[in-house]
Amino acid sequence: MDEDAGALPKKQDFSEWYNDLLWRAEIMDVRYPVKGLYVWFPYGFAVRTYVYRRLRELLDRDHNETLFPLLIPEQEFMKEAEHIKGFENEVYWVTHGGTTPLEIKLALRPTSETAIYPMFALWVRSHADLPLRIYQVVNTFRYETKQTRPMIRAREITSFMESHTVHATWNEAEAQVESEIALTREFYRSLCIPIIISKRPDWDKFPGADYTIAVDTIMPNGKTLQIGTVHHLGDHFSRTFSILYEDKNGEQKVAYQTCYGISERCIAALISVHGDDKGLILPPAVATLQVVIVPITIGNHHEDVIAAAEKLKADLETAGFRVKLDDRDMRPGAKYYWWELRGVPLRLELGPRDLDAGKAMAVKRSGGKTTISLAMASGDVSRVLGEITDAIRTKAEENAKLHLSTADSMDALNSALNEGNVAVVRWCRERGCGNTIEEKANSSLLGTEVRSEYIEATDGPCIICGKPGKATLVGRTY
Amino acid sequence: MDEDAGALPKKQDFSEWYNDLLWRAEIMDVRYPVKGLYVWFPYGFAVRTYVYRRLRELLDRDHNETLFPLLIPEQEFMKEAEHIKGFENEVYWVTHGGTTPLEIKLALRPTSETAIYPMFALWVRSHADLPLRIYQVVNTFRYETKQTRPMIRAREITSFMESHTVHATWNEAEAQVESEIALTREFYRSLCIPIIISKRPDWDKFPGADYTIAVDTIMPNGKTLQIGTVHHLGDHFSRTFSILYEDKNGEQKVAYQTCYGISERCIAALISVHGDDKGLILPPAVATLQVVIVPITIGNHHEDVIAAAEKLKADLETAGFRVKLDDRDMRPGAKYYWWELRGVPLRLELGPRDLDAGKAMAVKRSGGKTTISLAMASGDVSRVLGEITDAIRTKAEENAKLHLSTADSMDALNSALNEGNVAVVRWCRERGCGNTIEEKANSSLLGTEVRSEYIEATDGPCIICGKPGKATLVGRTY
Repeated sequence: MDEDAGALPKKQDFSEWYNDLLWRAEIMDVRYPVKGLYVWFPYGFAVRTYVYRRLRELLDRDHNETLFPLLIPEQEFMKEAEHIKGFENEVYWVTHGGTTPLEIKLALRPTSETAIYPMFALWVRSHADLPLRIYQVVNTFRYETKQTRPMIRAREITSFMESHTVHATWNEAEAQVESEIALTREFYRSLCIPIIISKRPDWDKFPGADYTIAVDTIMPNGKTLQIGTVHHLGDHFSRTFSILYEDKNGEQKVAYQTCYGISERCIAALISVHGDDKGLILPPAVATLQVVIVPITIGNHHEDVIAAAEKLKADLETAGFRVKLDDRDMRPGAKYYWWELRGVPLRLELGPRDLDAGKAMAVKRSGGKTTISLAMASGDVSRVLGEITDAIRTKAEENAKLHLSTADSMDALNSALNEGNVAVVRWCRERGCGNTIEEKANSSLLGTEVRSEYIEATDGPCIICGKPGKATLVGRTY
Repeated sequence: MDEDAGALPKKQDFSEWYNDLLWRAEIMDVRYPVKGLYVWFPYGFAVRTYVYRRLRELLDRDHNETLFPLLIPEQEFMKEAEHIKGFENEVYWVTHGGTTPLEIKLALRPTSETAIYPMFALWVRSHADLPLRIYQVVNTFRYETKQTRPMIRAREITSFMESHTVHATWNEAEAQVESEIALTREFYRSLCIPIIISKRPDWDKFPGADYTIAVDTIMPNGKTLQIGTVHHLGDHFSRTFSILYEDKNGEQKVAYQTCYGISERCIAALISVHGDDKGLILPPAVATLQVVIVPITIGNHHEDVIAAAEKLKADLETAGFRVKLDDRDMRPGAKYYWWELRGVPLRLELGPRDLDAGKAMAVKRSGGKTTISLAMASGDVSRVLGEITDAIRTKAEENAKLHLSTADSMDALNSALNEGNVAVVRWCRERGCGNTIEEKANSSLLGTEVRSEYIEATDGPCIICGKPGKATLVGRTY
């Protein structure tokens, strides 16, 4: 599917680089004949598989996976007033089955609260049923009118992980929110993606929530990308959908809920944060292939080298690594280019002289070379993959630090944003001052209660009115 | 979620047994407020996970997994005339995004030929791109007007595996059909489900196919359930969607295609074929839990028994088995009932006397008891699980043989069908005689070229006209 069409654009031209890389590295095909819908190529799908395997592994510790229908009947969808206001402009409606108009219109889920909670009302009877924690990984739909981008803003979100929980008290739901945040931290640590956590302003919270904690990352062009949200739903939905339980004293009580979502934006971030001018760079934990072996066959050593490469592959696979032996009839240089584009973390080159020395050349996709011993290949590869993970994470974290700054005035904020940064300002938490900041800096107030390892967020006077203000994250967003 | 509501109906009342079991064993909740849409409970979802893991394992040998959009624009959907005739009455249409009517109506895929093949036209350029073999596991939709049943006839098929392949020649596509049939055999062998393969009559083939090979199983009430189909598409779709390749001589050629599908009906069959009056019986290969350990704690041996049960669990998990230690505060008898209902293949009972003897009682869900040695637990459990698999398969195969017979006249056919059998008759392959058989026996001609290990299918005179006829499978179908 790859065609010779010149070089990958430089990463500094981020938008072109991203679009071109999705195609060249065979992640996604954007030529599907409907705007905002995309096709996962096999290689991209494999990346998705490993990333979501990791997410499921973390969720499965204390959530159960389930699957609810895509189609939501209009009357359920319309029950929660705030919620429907938040989604009514972007819901796809099914109105016909065959040539017959449906009696009740069916919404394609934009998110599944209104599909799941009528069932929760049946599932939850007593305090012994709580906490209830489920999740599903599903396709969801938004009729986006803004510019669409693969994995970042799509009309079919193909890979939406949504978790939904029910608790006896508001405080237990709050503890669940913190638990989901911890899970998200651990997930993104596996992906080596630096994140900043904050509490979205009230006007930007999930429709129907008490509050929303959001997880953002900084993309190469300085824009922030929301890559996870956890919502404390209070008792809004449980009252609407009658999710009640009998407590230990036999009294009927209203339950409290949370929901939490991560979409394939996690893969958009994975690609964007780590990639370079040569292509993808995949952290070993989620790389489709962790090691590619390229035999360097010269003259009459051909068979020895191939045999040694096959043994090396077998040894590494036995140890549990995902390995490919590239024995295609191509120049080694063309193979290097091929696998660098596709982000394989470690390339092992094996030629006659390496074989004599009992070693292989190990080239790290994160930069630098070393050698591994053929006799102790699995231990050496494990160590080198660890170094690669560290290098990828360190580089990403340093970059995040470089793109975060503090701004004490609107001028400073505008400069910071124009330089491709995300800034911490102080804000009095009045809507008026918030609007002024957003308008004058063409930006979004991402949130207060900033949690970041990469910048200190201290309180101070509001940059608009001078009254006492809270540290607040401001950025230009996707 | 389980409530005390009397006993499971007997399996001989198959319909009630099936519906009740889905609820009691927590496979599926049928109370979702739209007809024909169902919710997977966590336990059912886990069964689905292991079944589809096995299917993917087989497919991944020579297919690549991908993911295409759900929504198909009307103009693509309408391109292949036969195909659209086959589906136009059962397609759901999305007509609105928010409150805005869409310019182009979007179909919810009933199957994905018309979503995938416009992309294949872009992906296939030369003979070097062939064969192309991909699959996806997706939700598909049919506006069913017949009676709906969980997993058997649903409006959202939540778990449709569809494979699509492209080949240089008609013969290579035919070889692919045979390869998909072999894969299906291997899959159903893992599930211990007996299958009968036949070639559907022309009037019942896939809309747009050259021919359809179908895989049926016999349900406990004698009805057949189609649980897989492989279609040779010839060049019908490749001509319509311009899937062309340049051959070795530089000439443009039309490609040939196959497609192949398996839905969650495989799980309906798994439940129905093996279950009994006590509940599910899951073959070890796809059982969510393979072993449940029930400690029998009496008097002051409590701690010793629990410690030994925990060690047994750890030993078995290390050996790769899926194990649960049920240390709930319940009577052992209630636990036996609980896990028998849920189909766990092997129960290990461990009490003080067993512990003294270094053994555990092993109760097979397929019937019978034995003991295993605690010192050699993993080897013993592996052997006993093998015995259980054999017993489940043997019982299912014997039952299939009992439900298959040969009928030499319409009277014999009607008797066979009324007794809950599937019959082999001889048919001249004229449509008229075919219709007569179907009408007079209130049945379906499943197909010719019958491939079955359970009955000999020989040719003979047509049971209607007496002309030379081919062995033909006839049944009453879901």
